[in-house]
Amino acid sequence: MKNQTYRMTMLYDFFGEILTDRQKEFYDLYYNNDLSLSEIAENFGISRQGVRDVIVRAEGILTEMEDKTGLVKRFLKMRETIEQIESAATEIKQINYRQYENPRVGDLTEQILTAAESLKE
Amino acid sequence: MKNQTYRMTMLYDFFGEILTDRQKEFYDLYYNNDLSLSEIAENFGISRQGVRDVIVRAEGILTEMEDKTGLVKRFLKMRETIEQIESAATEIKQINYRQYENPRVGDLTEQILTAAESLKE
Repeated sequence: MKNQTYRMTMLYDFFGEILTDRQKEFYDLYYNNDLSLSEIAENFGISRQGVRDVIVRAEGILTEMEDKTGLVKRFLKMRETIEQIESAATEIKQINYRQYENPRVGDLTEQILTAAESLKE
Repeated sequence: MKNQTYRMTMLYDFFGEILTDRQKEFYDLYYNNDLSLSEIAENFGISRQGVRDVIVRAEGILTEMEDKTGLVKRFLKMRETIEQIESAATEIKQINYRQYENPRVGDLTEQILTAAESLKE
């Protein structure tokens, strides 16, 4: 637990809504708000082990969803491709800036960069 | 059933692996191989209603997954953005072809178009 926060946050972003309300609440406090197991336990008046069980179960459900669907992996692969698009658009922008100063080309490269950025959200 | 094959195919592509083997098999024959309920029933030696029940259940599971996660919707929205990128890159390509004939700009626009196309797969 908490050794792979980035991965767990991605899994939660994709599949979090399939969890129960309690699983979501504890998972969110632990991974997104960075509370400790003991702090969550104290706030809810239950044992530290009880909190841990809920979060481990939630991690298991999210991990199983990803193992089956591979959707987070697919999305991360798309990010790499989006970065190639950004890199190419940036180079066109620079060439245009140095050689042609065509305002329409400038606009179009900005459109590509803005669109690519929004795809990564 | 079969009134929204495109949607059901998308849902299956995203979440199909969470179904049981039997659900996958019937769903696939019905939606992807376009067999009728009766044909599937005959092949498996069970009733048409039995096949229908399995497929309706599978549809329910996949639809619930999408209702909760919204991942197909998110992906379809990304497609629109990718099409904006393709449109902008195509216009740069045309401007370059008509006015500048810069081979590097030609390569870069092709890179963007190829990458964008691969994102839609």
